[in-house]
Formats: sequence, C-alpha cells, structure tokens
Amino acid sequence: MNYLNINGTDEKYEFKVGNTLLNILHENNIGIEIPCGGKGTCGKCKIKIVTGEINDKTDEEVNHLTKCELEEGIRLACLVIPKGDLTVELLQKKDLKHSILTEGYMPDIKINPLISKKVYNITKPTLENNISYEDILKDISNNSLHINNPILLRKLPKAFEQDQITAVYSDEELIGIEYKDTSKSIFGLSIDIGTTTVVGSLVDLSTGKEIDVESEINPQKEYGLDVLSRIHFIKNNSDGLEILHNLIIKCINKLILKLCNKNDVCSENIHEVAVAANATMMHILLKVNPVSIGKSPYSPIFSSSKTISASSLGINISSFGVIYCLPGVSSYIGSDIVAGAVVSELSKTDKNILFIDIGTNGEIVLSKKGKLSSCSCAAGPALEGMNISCGMRAQDGAIEGVNIDESGIELKVIGNTDPIGICGSGIIEVISEIVRLNLMGKTGRLKKKDDLKKDEKLKEIAKFVVEENKKRKFLINSKPKEIYITQSDIRQVQLAKGAILSGFYALLELMEIDMNDLDEIIIAGQFGKHLSIDSLVGVGIVPEKLREKIRYIGNSSKTGALMCLISKEAREDMEKTSREINYFELSTKEGYERLFTSCLNFY
Amino acid sequence: MNYLNINGTDEKYEFKVGNTLLNILHENNIGIEIPCGGKGTCGKCKIKIVTGEINDKTDEEVNHLTKCELEEGIRLACLVIPKGDLTVELLQKKDLKHSILTEGYMPDIKINPLISKKVYNITKPTLENNISYEDILKDISNNSLHINNPILLRKLPKAFEQDQITAVYSDEELIGIEYKDTSKSIFGLSIDIGTTTVVGSLVDLSTGKEIDVESEINPQKEYGLDVLSRIHFIKNNSDGLEILHNLIIKCINKLILKLCNKNDVCSENIHEVAVAANATMMHILLKVNPVSIGKSPYSPIFSSSKTISASSLGINISSFGVIYCLPGVSSYIGSDIVAGAVVSELSKTDKNILFIDIGTNGEIVLSKKGKLSSCSCAAGPALEGMNISCGMRAQDGAIEGVNIDESGIELKVIGNTDPIGICGSGIIEVISEIVRLNLMGKTGRLKKKDDLKKDEKLKEIAKFVVEENKKRKFLINSKPKEIYITQSDIRQVQLAKGAILSGFYALLELMEIDMNDLDEIIIAGQFGKHLSIDSLVGVGIVPEKLREKIRYIGNSSKTGALMCLISKEAREDMEKTSREINYFELSTKEGYERLFTSCLNFY
Repeated sequence: MNYLNINGTDEKYEFKVGNTLLNILHENNIGIEIPCGGKGTCGKCKIKIVTGEINDKTDEEVNHLTKCELEEGIRLACLVIPKGDLTVELLQKKDLKHSILTEGYMPDIKINPLISKKVYNITKPTLENNISYEDILKDISNNSLHINNPILLRKLPKAFEQDQITAVYSDEELIGIEYKDTSKSIFGLSIDIGTTTVVGSLVDLSTGKEIDVESEINPQKEYGLDVLSRIHFIKNNSDGLEILHNLIIKCINKLILKLCNKNDVCSENIHEVAVAANATMMHILLKVNPVSIGKSPYSPIFSSSKTISASSLGINISSFGVIYCLPGVSSYIGSDIVAGAVVSELSKTDKNILFIDIGTNGEIVLSKKGKLSSCSCAAGPALEGMNISCGMRAQDGAIEGVNIDESGIELKVIGNTDPIGICGSGIIEVISEIVRLNLMGKTGRLKKKDDLKKDEKLKEIAKFVVEENKKRKFLINSKPKEIYITQSDIRQVQLAKGAILSGFYALLELMEIDMNDLDEIIIAGQFGKHLSIDSLVGVGIVPEKLREKIRYIGNSSKTGALMCLISKEAREDMEKTSREINYFELSTKEGYERLFTSCLNFY
Repeated sequence: MNYLNINGTDEKYEFKVGNTLLNILHENNIGIEIPCGGKGTCGKCKIKIVTGEINDKTDEEVNHLTKCELEEGIRLACLVIPKGDLTVELLQKKDLKHSILTEGYMPDIKINPLISKKVYNITKPTLENNISYEDILKDISNNSLHINNPILLRKLPKAFEQDQITAVYSDEELIGIEYKDTSKSIFGLSIDIGTTTVVGSLVDLSTGKEIDVESEINPQKEYGLDVLSRIHFIKNNSDGLEILHNLIIKCINKLILKLCNKNDVCSENIHEVAVAANATMMHILLKVNPVSIGKSPYSPIFSSSKTISASSLGINISSFGVIYCLPGVSSYIGSDIVAGAVVSELSKTDKNILFIDIGTNGEIVLSKKGKLSSCSCAAGPALEGMNISCGMRAQDGAIEGVNIDESGIELKVIGNTDPIGICGSGIIEVISEIVRLNLMGKTGRLKKKDDLKKDEKLKEIAKFVVEENKKRKFLINSKPKEIYITQSDIRQVQLAKGAILSGFYALLELMEIDMNDLDEIIIAGQFGKHLSIDSLVGVGIVPEKLREKIRYIGNSSKTGALMCLISKEAREDMEKTSREINYFELSTKEGYERLFTSCLNFY
C-alpha cells in the first residue's frame, strides 16, 4: 500500500498504484473541481507535487500550464499517476459553502434560464384613456391579449398601486407578477427523487449558481424498499397512491423549507422546480397510478416531460411556480438516466462510453459514438445497504470502508465513532475483500472455517468466519456491537452484481461493441460515487480490464435537473436525448437467463 | 281599445292600432319563433287571419307564402298590422319543453361547437412495443407529445382497461378522456349573470339545441342592488370579494344542479360554460377585485375574454371542463352587451341601429352602418322593480300591467291572484298611464288631488291620489293589500329614463346621426322584453317618433353566450366585435349634465 499526504495536514490516504491522483482524491472525498469531468481538457484541477514520484508531464499539461508552473511542480490531478507515496499541495481555493456541490461533473453550459424577470414602470389609466389594467400591461405579456390565469389577474389591482412591478416569464410566457423590483430574487430548485434518497438543490437563476443542497430519505421507504414493492402497495391499497403521493410532496416541501431557511431565501421567490426521477417515482409525484410499470408488458403511463403548476401539486413555491418533470424513456429508464446521459454528453461523443447508474435499480446506457441504447437491471437495494442484516444508511456510525489482511480487519467508520452498522459502500468493500482474499468460492459460498484454518495464509482470518445453526457469517466487528455479513447478504450483492454485469454484456452484444473498444465507464448516482474503483472491480461489477477507464460523475440526475433550470438549451438537449435513447427489455433478449447466471460467479 | 283573440281560446288581448301583430303577440307573452328577428326575411312567423281587418299583403309575404297560403288568409305576423279587433290562428307547432327558450332572437348560425368528442378503440402495448400509454394515444392528442394536465394523465391507467374511450377536445386541444363511448353526451351551459338575475341554459352540443333554462335571483343582491353598492361593499370589507364570489359560484352550481336534475343530464357531461356578464359581475366571478371600476378613471382590471378551468373556480361540471368568459369593452360595457351586439348583428348591418339593454344599468350601442359606439347610463334598479316602495320581483302576485281610465284601474297580475306588489313592467306601465292621463307635471310631480278634482276628465281618477303627511302617492290597489306609487318612486323611474334617454341622444350626437335616420331600435334584456312598446314610449325611454321601429330580442346576453357554445365562428365574432365597439364615457362629454337634466322632463 502507498499513501497520499496533503501538504500541511497529518491525514494520510491509502491508494494503489495505477489510479490517477484525481480518482484517489475523489475516492477519499477530497473535493476538487473538475469542470471538464477529469478529461484533461479544462486545466482546472491544478495541484503541486511536493514530494514523490509520478509520471512524466503530458502534452495536455504542457498546453494548460505555464513553464513557470511546470517548474514549480504544478500538474493536473487528472493526468497525474503516482508511482509511490506522495505529498501534494491543493491549489484550488475552496468556498466552503459550495464544497459539497461541485463534486458532480457538469458540462460547460451557457447560463440561459427559461425563467426570467423584467421590471416595468406602471402607467396609470386616465379618464380619457380608461382601458383595462390588462391592456395597459399588454407589453409585459408580450402582446398576448389574454391573461387567462386568475391568480395573475387577481394581482393586477394591487400592481397598479405600485410604481414598479416585476414580471416573471417562463420562456416568452408571462407567468407571474410581483410588486416592486424583485428582479434580483429569482430561484429554482432541482430535485432528484431516488427510490431511497431525495436530493434538492437551490439554484440562483440570476447567476446560474447552486447555493445549497439538502437531502432526505425518501419517506415512501416505509412502504417498500424498491419500486416494485411500492407498486405492489399501491395495487393492494385503494388509498396507496394517495399515501405515497402525499409523502413525496411533504418531503419536497420539507427540503424547500430547509433550503429556504438556511439560505434566507423566500419560497415565494422559487419560480421553478425541475425534477428528475425514475418512472415510478415520477408517476407517484404526479399521482398517476404506476401499476402498469410493474406488470408485463411494463408500459409506463407517460414518459414525456411535463410542465405542471406547483400549486396543483401542493408544492410550496411561488403561487404561479411551475414544476418541470424531465423526460424519460421507458418504465425502467427514467428521466434520472436521461439526465445522466445529457450530463455525460453521451449523444455528443465520438467515443464508446458505458454509463452506469448504480442505485436500487441499475440502469445502463451505452453510447456507440453517440448512438444511444439502454437497459435496466433490477439490482435491488443491497448495494445501498438495504435488506442487509447489519445494513444502515451512510451516516455517523456506518462502516463505509473495510480493509482485511492477516493482521486483522481495519474499518473506516463515518464520524470516526464506534461502528453501529454497515452502509452500501462498506458492504461492497467487505465482499470485494472477501473475493480478493479468496474467502469464498466462485458461486459466492463462504468457505468453511475449518478449510480456511488449513490455509497458511488465511488461518488468521478464519476467526472472522462464524458458524451458527449451520449458517455461516463473516464477523467484521464484535465490540461494542457485533456487525457481520451473512451468506444471504452476499447473495443479495451477488444478485445485484449479476444483474448489472449481465445488462452490461447484453448491451455490448446488442450494439456489437467489443469490450476492448470501450473508451470510458461512467459511474453515476449519489451512491455510485461512494464506491471505490477497487471495490467496483473487486466485486466484479466492472471487469478488471476496464479499471483504468472508470470515471465518476456523481449525482448526474440532480445535475441534469439543475442544467434544465439554468439553460434552455440543456432542456432541449434533454428532450432530444430522451427520444434518441433506444430501450432494450432485457427479458426479451434470447439467452439472457444464461448470461445472467454466468454473471453471478465471483471468479 | 281593440282586442286580439286566438282562435279556439277565450283569451282576449288588448292592443292599440299601429303595432305589428308580432309585437302584440310578444307583448302578451305568446311565444312565436322568429329566426330572422321579425324582419320579414325568414318567413317563419306564419299565422292565419280568421276574422278582422289588416293591412294589404306586402311584397315580402308574396315572396315567402304560396298563392294557396295567401288565399287561405295565411300571413306573416311580423308584417301584419291590425286595423281593429282580430282573431288569428297560430300555425307554429310548439314543442312545449322548448317554449320558453325560443322567445329570444338568435341569428342563423352553423352548429360548430368548440367542444367536440371522438371515440377511439384502445390498442394495448406489448412486450415488444411497450411504449407509454400516452404515446399510444398520440393520435388522440393530435400528436402533441405532452399531456401536461395531471387530471388527464390520471385517467389513462383505467382508460387502458377499456375497449373504447372518448376523447374530448376544445378546438384541437385534447382536454378530457372519458371511458367507453360517451360521444352522445356532450353538453354546455350558457350563463347570463345579471346584477339582479342569473339565467342559465343547458345546451346539447351534439345538436346545438337549447334543452332547458333556469333562473335565480343573484344572491349578491343582499349586498347591494347595483354594481356600485357591491363594489362599495368589497371596498369596505376585507372579505367582501370572497363573500360575493362564493355567492355567485354557489348560485351557478345551484342552476347546474337544477338543470341537470330536471333534464336527466350528468353534470360530468357538461364540458363548457360560457358566461356573459357586466364587467363587475365578471370580475367577482373570477375573484378579481373590481374596485377600480367604481372610481375615476373607471378602468376595469380586464375586459378581454378568459378561458379558465372550471375546477379552479369551483364550478361543478366535468373535472376538465372550462369556463369561457365572453369579452367585454370597458367597465360599463361588459360582455353581456357585446353578446347583444353580436346577436343583433350590429357590426354586419348597413343600417343605423340603436341597441338598448335595459337593466340595472342601461347600456346603449349605436351602429352607424356597422360602425359601433357605445355608452352606459346608470339607470338604477328602479326599472326592475327594486328600490320602489311596493316593488317586487316578477312572480305570482306581482302587478305587471296597469290600465287606467275614468272607470277605474284595471290590473294584470301574474298568476291571476290578489296583487301583493308591483314589478318593473308594472311600474313603468303605471307611470306611462300617469303620463298619458296628465296626472303629473312635466317635472314629474303628481298633481294635487284638489287640482285633479277640478278637471272634468280626471275627477274620477283623483280618488287614487292620496295625500299623507304632505306626501303624495298614487294608490293602484287597496284591498286586500294597499299598493301604491310614491312621488319618490316616480323620481327613481324618472332618473332611469333620463339616464337612458340622455345616453341615447349623446350617442346620436357623437356619431352624427339624426334621429330620423335611425332604422331600428332594439330592446334587449331579460327585463326589457317585458316592457311594452306603449310603456317604453309612454314613459319616454324611447321617443314617440321611433315607436314603429322598436324590436325586441329578449335576453341577448344569454343568447350570445349560447352562440359561443355552439359556434366557433360566433365566438370569433364576439372577440372581433368586442374590439370594434368604441366606448364613450358620458361624463367626459361636454354639456352632458345639461342634456341629462333636459331628458328628465316627462313632456
């Protein structure tokens, strides 16, 4: 093992030779802005090598750095591959308030929000020209003679008591009127509704900057961990849809309240919410029965984008605010994935790129030089730490990293406290380590304690295998709390890995691409970003030979929604991409069952 | 006096020589259909002269009637002018259910409603082609990819359990989906919201036929008899607008319930409501504060047409139903008057036509060969029987007609019961009789009882003048209930007449038309139709020399709303006409006060 040290701190971060410095930094949650996504094209991820041996400077670095910078040892983190222990100095000045927000990749886009404001001086009617207030405001409504929204009409009487009013537009259409000059207060909210987590981020539409982000556990979780169980609940309870719909609306309103209070923003000044979500979550958000998603032929009720008044859904933003629901493709390729494809610029590339969003479902989009196809695999919630004996959410007390060797088990616990459970990334790491150390067979069965004891190298580790009632489990912590991985937990992860890997292979085959011709593997998802390359490869979700090609883009669902808020063009791109992605129903592929079975193997 | 007898009945109707037979029939509420409005151009108002002397046959009658018909004595009621007592036979077969509906004039229009329905067979998705339900229905939504209305989306899951569904369109736009074939059930509702009365009529949009009509007293009456007092109430009570708005919505829902129950129509099948009303009533309907209407410079908040979802106003029709509010012109020329102008085809004429809507306000539109100008006069509620000592609504027990001569007072009472009060038309008739008999002076002051007694002709009538506490009143009934007209009642009517007549003269002057060049005087309004030509001329609302030119068109506000329901073209006509009518603010006319004062005189 080698160690990375950040100059001026005592922290040391373990890493394996072969990864880029950028990946090592990101794996250790050390934020560093990468506007180009780590492709070596923007020159922003400058660091200074203090001590340690690295690769020679690349042509891109020579292009982006001055001679003077190069002499000082300044390099680009995305192009640096350490050869051993290393000490570096971080050069990006961090605005703490924004630190969590910049971790996801976002392409460079022009700030051009659909929502805009304009200030007008009020001209009062006279006895000689006593036309209606609406007619006087003809200019502000872009000469449309009819303000058909009663909420807007009702604001006119008081508007004429002002000297100035501010008109709010969605594209060219007048949607709101505010008294006085409020042109500086114009906000949007981008929301990613995951089956497990709901993330909301507040955006200043006047600058296009993200202000803050908040997340909540999706409260629908009480009614099922995955989309199918929620659909089941809706099918079997006449008020099921109502219950789940109300929960998500309440959750969104809670996020709005938190974000507004923290940042001193008035919710009346949030004019648009852009939502990305899988199809089931989107159906429930709009209170549209999603039952057809859960049964053959798996048709959604809708997959196109929607623009709906916030008030009709009970979402507490501006009284004339709108909700833009991003477009999806099918029942199992929702707008969250379309967002990811746009954020990754999959339809604009001339490369072969595989995009994987790892969540409760695993969705895969393959770009063959810009031609897009997709499939979806029911990974289940195991990868997110759900349905696991000692599973828990990634919060204080959760084991998020595990390192096993002869001397014992080393744990990385969130909040540096005593461990109380294990979260998704921890589970993947444990299993990755079990695989690495050969503690189980190809089929995923933990080896017997007695067999392990016979192996010179493993006999020390054998003590962690516990056998009770003919059931085997792997103990990773005993005091103060026993935390273990059971054989059944391993099965859950195995099924998830098998589902994703087989989807991956199936898509390559359908699109006739050889794995060696893949240029990039993009890992998306709020959760995906916590999975290290080692564990992704270790568990077998990504084949070893693609290790070097892995790139993380963070929560691209949220990023895509955010892009729709701040750029009309991005929104058009989203619409276009949703129509361009072909969807393959894996179950209709010949020989899929066989492929899936073979993908379950760990070796 | 002469009498008209309907052959085969004992009924005799008094009339004065000089009026057309059609006017005599209408004045006596004998329904007869006149598609052309009594202009002699449609040939529908055939009657047979049984006995009596009339004018010679006209050229129009020769055109419209066969030789055989003419030999049998068949003539057109609109062109017949009786010379003395007459017995006629009515030839139109009356559908009793429709009898009340056809009394208003409506131009011939093509039935082409904005709202339409189309039945579709449902194609189910397959595993090979599991596109969304919305996409399958692309055809029904006219290829628009987005059904943005959640209410519609929510209907799709169940729609796919059907074999057939019915799509509802407003023009080209899909607004609703109904299960099974419901193409035969498609209804509209036209509503005239008067300050005093609210009239609703149910229309079968598949045939364009009116099915039934109902009316209610406007419940806002409790808060003021005219628009200004309601505005005053709103201005002085923070919840005033809410109160009046809720009252009118409740009233409309009551009308809907009555019409649906009576005619076995489901309110879910009413897809559109077209509303005509004065500006204040329209503002309150949409809960838009009308206070600006009541104070200089008298600007309304809006006057253009509005299309608003019924559910957002709480109007109980189809859940995706829409409310179309007809366009108006100004604060005092509302959509009720625009409707009247369209019904009267004022902008299509090559004549000079004066249109008067007599209600709580008197609105006048003058067409100078198709060029339209208008003004409004605050007539007050007196002409409708409000604010009058013994005033009451036109219902059983109300005196609606009065005939005074030396032998005494003859009353016509609604329902043929003992009189309990006097309604608008009764008041006008009394005053018209008082004028005719010279019982008051030019300024409207009742003559002294003693002075009347001195007059040989009037001494018998003098007994009806009662003097109490120095106040004079005219007793028209003493037992079982005393009913009288006070000096103050006369003042109320005098102010109303003065307001209308001065508006009339002002408009002629502004448009530079000599009174002799007027071709037609159209009397509109639910109330106007109950005023006989004799009393209109008698009281002085219409100058004597125009007597022959008076034509009634009934409640043209309701008729105009109805036309909008059944004809897209009529709706466009309405929009166009609303933009063409010039509005003159009488108070800004030089010398208006003098004109008004001179118009108060009775002789």
